[in-house]
Amino acid sequence: MKISMAQMKVNPKQLEDNFQTIKTLIEQAKQQGSDCIVFPELALSGYLLADLWYNPSFISQCESYNEKIVALSDGIIVIWGNVSSNLEDYLKGNDGRQALFNCAFVAHNKQFLKRENGSTLPYVKNLLPNYRIFDDSRYFISGQKFSVDFMFSPFIATLNNQDVRIALEVCEDLWSEHYDVNPTALWSEKQIDLLVNISSSPWTINKERTRDNHLMNMVKTYNIPFFVYVNTVGMQNTGKNVVLFDGGSKCISKLGQVVAQCNDGFEQEIKAFDLNRFAPGNLVYNQDKLLNAILTGIKEFDYQIFKGKVNWIIGLSGGIDSSVSAALLVLALGSKRVLGVNMPSKYNQQITINNAMLTAEKLGVEYLDVPIESLVDATALVTKLNHEDANSIEVVENTQARIRGHILSTIAAIRNGVVVNNGNKVETALGYCTIYGDTIGALSPLGDCTKMQVFDLARQLNKRFEDGVVPENLIPKEDEEGLSFDFMPSAELKSNQVDPMKWGYHDYLVQLYSEYPSHGFSDLIGHYKDGSIWKQPVSKWLKFYNLIDFESFIDDLKWVDYQIQSSVFKRIQMPPSILVSRGSFGSDFRENQGIYSCVDIKQ
Amino acid sequence: MKISMAQMKVNPKQLEDNFQTIKTLIEQAKQQGSDCIVFPELALSGYLLADLWYNPSFISQCESYNEKIVALSDGIIVIWGNVSSNLEDYLKGNDGRQALFNCAFVAHNKQFLKRENGSTLPYVKNLLPNYRIFDDSRYFISGQKFSVDFMFSPFIATLNNQDVRIALEVCEDLWSEHYDVNPTALWSEKQIDLLVNISSSPWTINKERTRDNHLMNMVKTYNIPFFVYVNTVGMQNTGKNVVLFDGGSKCISKLGQVVAQCNDGFEQEIKAFDLNRFAPGNLVYNQDKLLNAILTGIKEFDYQIFKGKVNWIIGLSGGIDSSVSAALLVLALGSKRVLGVNMPSKYNQQITINNAMLTAEKLGVEYLDVPIESLVDATALVTKLNHEDANSIEVVENTQARIRGHILSTIAAIRNGVVVNNGNKVETALGYCTIYGDTIGALSPLGDCTKMQVFDLARQLNKRFEDGVVPENLIPKEDEEGLSFDFMPSAELKSNQVDPMKWGYHDYLVQLYSEYPSHGFSDLIGHYKDGSIWKQPVSKWLKFYNLIDFESFIDDLKWVDYQIQSSVFKRIQMPPSILVSRGSFGSDFRENQGIYSCVDIKQ
Repeated sequence: MKISMAQMKVNPKQLEDNFQTIKTLIEQAKQQGSDCIVFPELALSGYLLADLWYNPSFISQCESYNEKIVALSDGIIVIWGNVSSNLEDYLKGNDGRQALFNCAFVAHNKQFLKRENGSTLPYVKNLLPNYRIFDDSRYFISGQKFSVDFMFSPFIATLNNQDVRIALEVCEDLWSEHYDVNPTALWSEKQIDLLVNISSSPWTINKERTRDNHLMNMVKTYNIPFFVYVNTVGMQNTGKNVVLFDGGSKCISKLGQVVAQCNDGFEQEIKAFDLNRFAPGNLVYNQDKLLNAILTGIKEFDYQIFKGKVNWIIGLSGGIDSSVSAALLVLALGSKRVLGVNMPSKYNQQITINNAMLTAEKLGVEYLDVPIESLVDATALVTKLNHEDANSIEVVENTQARIRGHILSTIAAIRNGVVVNNGNKVETALGYCTIYGDTIGALSPLGDCTKMQVFDLARQLNKRFEDGVVPENLIPKEDEEGLSFDFMPSAELKSNQVDPMKWGYHDYLVQLYSEYPSHGFSDLIGHYKDGSIWKQPVSKWLKFYNLIDFESFIDDLKWVDYQIQSSVFKRIQMPPSILVSRGSFGSDFRENQGIYSCVDIKQ
Repeated sequence: MKISMAQMKVNPKQLEDNFQTIKTLIEQAKQQGSDCIVFPELALSGYLLADLWYNPSFISQCESYNEKIVALSDGIIVIWGNVSSNLEDYLKGNDGRQALFNCAFVAHNKQFLKRENGSTLPYVKNLLPNYRIFDDSRYFISGQKFSVDFMFSPFIATLNNQDVRIALEVCEDLWSEHYDVNPTALWSEKQIDLLVNISSSPWTINKERTRDNHLMNMVKTYNIPFFVYVNTVGMQNTGKNVVLFDGGSKCISKLGQVVAQCNDGFEQEIKAFDLNRFAPGNLVYNQDKLLNAILTGIKEFDYQIFKGKVNWIIGLSGGIDSSVSAALLVLALGSKRVLGVNMPSKYNQQITINNAMLTAEKLGVEYLDVPIESLVDATALVTKLNHEDANSIEVVENTQARIRGHILSTIAAIRNGVVVNNGNKVETALGYCTIYGDTIGALSPLGDCTKMQVFDLARQLNKRFEDGVVPENLIPKEDEEGLSFDFMPSAELKSNQVDPMKWGYHDYLVQLYSEYPSHGFSDLIGHYKDGSIWKQPVSKWLKFYNLIDFESFIDDLKWVDYQIQSSVFKRIQMPPSILVSRGSFGSDFRENQGIYSCVDIKQ
């Protein structure tokens, strides 16, 4: 039996586009001589659609494509993901909304394939994730509403007069560890020839390896003859987050052999293989994955939201975040669509201005020099700012940042452009940014990257471009003891200003807070108290920043905790960020306003 | 048996504050001579806490208060809502997170009360809402994990040597229509003396009546001897929305008599009544509820987020939205904490400037006049704006709006203040606003009100203040045919500009889109096609705006649909709005970016 894995790029909400892609891929699979083609979960619609799932016109349009796909199944088994709203008696969901099922369909020779029990009803996703960015129970009804006997009855195809017994599952069904039901185990109790999992599984750092380890374990534990895993690629958004799908589709035999694999580099691919004749391979992974993820995010956001027709306006301060952002934009979209703007005030050093010019020159982007002093002065004048006032320095700091935001917005309007946000996750988390100033933009490519990850990206970008585009003076050296900077990162909003962040250590704290809320700072304090912290990598930073005695350690932690909680209002109003961690602010790690004073920290 | 309903104001995340309130209310109930006191759902923590529910320190702190409450139960049955993380074997939730149960606890004479089956485990919320602002399945495990026999075993108290058999349920358990399980029905099969529902039920327009109708129906259908419903009051936020709880706690007898009721005016109240001796009353409702809701929202947001210590800076354009916002702020916080700023450009008419001055004077708030031309000119100069360019007028329009936002932010910084956002739901929905300009602010009091609701609020405010504070020339007359304005609403960003919104009709469309996504525009088009639309109230607007022929009707609908979908990016970056509808943009009606072209509209 020959199978084509169709690792398809799904364009969310664009049903006709996706159907055309499906049609083309089915033709290719036929040319490959395949007996079967497998598409990902929700291949017609996309997965992250927010409350569009409540729209009955949209749903019936989604469903109308099923018959069109069935019509393409002459001589080939087609497996695809789509929704269904008319299964059995479940016509109403909670709160009276239409009941919706997230399904795996299968057709052959222009008919829906029958199960062993005679039914042609699709397989319905059993496990509905409701954590991180996932709100499945908001939109879908679980397949657990049906009896196990019914739902786990194999689909039977006939190829060359032989029955092929196919088991289907959808995405989370594979990740059953913390659920009551284990679909993979239930299928393994049946006589099946292959188990197909169709997924829309978002990528986060190192997810590809976690996924493959898990897949291998499940195949071996449940003795699955062949496990075919097909994931989507591309970008979908949740409003607050730009979510990437890396692919990494593969077929694993029950011996744990890699029968075939598609790229995990976010690219569409169709790969055919024969279950009866294959040379087992080794798992291969995409290199520079974080960099490629962000590039994919920029490219796809630009294409999906702006049809690739806008210019991207970037404030080039000469600091590392904006240099890296600019290089990313150029790599993703080309230099002609990027415009760098340096907006000096009297606090900017010549060295950063030179950096900005150099980066623009090396990237080949247009560069504008727009001094902001006239607007700063005009603002002080009309608002009658008294420079003798205690808070006037802070007022002017934020004034500068907002005027820069305003200038960028104005240039964007003049040039048919949009502004890119340059913030990184650590300063966003700690609120070290001015709302309506450096928080603005259409997209935040680095918003979920720590400063340490930005440094790494800078190093990778300098390798990727022939000529180093991120000035080397911005990239610190990291060694066993800590970091050393040519000059310290600064927002340059007042004289001799230096960022208050303890780079490296605060990066670690922000990730702990957002990625592991179930552990968080309490565990860390516990590790300090029982001494085990000194055996962990983080101890390097405690030593480097001289946070060795408990008072220094806890004071700093208190400051970080308070900064994060008190800056929620800024993040509420920030642009979508490209999600790369498992705790991205927005739809992933969800916050509201109001300070909770943790006893552990009070101690 | 005498019961005190403790319609408590819960301060979210502030466990010790809430415990002190509970303690005080228990003392009051004892003074009232009550045998029992009932607190709302999650009375220690609050309900809308986002991912703080994942924080184990927070959870164990919540749980630590249970023993303290038990200790206060000498001589009185205490019923309260709190979470539990250590019930039976359910120690892990999905994705390996800690399992959490939303519970109703009951204690008497310093001990947890026993069920008939001997267990002291609390009642666990069965029905978990996952629609609108609710994400219960993200955080809580359903009581359905336990057997029905176990969970629906009554709690038995002894009062005067007699057994009292108490049934408990939590909030959504009462609203079982679209669920598989009906907790009220399950309790009705047991021998019980009273059923107590503890709630944190957010208010939306007309919710109080829907709730009481439903309660009456349930009591009669299931023959509940006495139904005690206790709801919380105050404000909690979801990040994007400020959510209000109106109370409306009550006891209904099985004959449908109103045994006792608390106010539904968002105010804390403790009300005692005797099940054996009562004079049935009539249901009483708060007047001017929308106005009171918004005032509560402002007051509580100011208190919870800013400790009541900031000044509120408002851009007073002399239009209706800002006049109403200013009056609301003054009514909620007093005139001393409000500062009005008029920021004229050359496009502002004298009549609106006079309106602004008059409103400020009548409200007794400080008034600043800050002309923005110098900043508009400086912006054009440094960005080299060419006034001959085709799009220069639009650029200048948005420049003015952003400069106003910038000025307000600067004044806020100088004056220890925050900016209020004046936008209404219709212009927010249609994207008729400038991002980083009039979209800014710490809070949007009117962001979920249609323009027609803003007109109503203006009329109510003019009654509430002795002297009309919203200039009468801003309030249209509405009659059978439509609306008549003294002068048309305008953003005054260019010459002779008039808002493109069809007030009244577009208000209706925006509510249809956001409140009834399961029906939406498809149904409306259906009603147009089958002619039934002409019997509906909306036909008044179709006639008024001359949208009678199909082409005009559908063209306008297409425009509205496109405007809503293409302005999602603005709403993503807008401040929290006070939720009053059942489709508030943000955490309630959830959107992401990307246009879906509906076939119905394409027709």
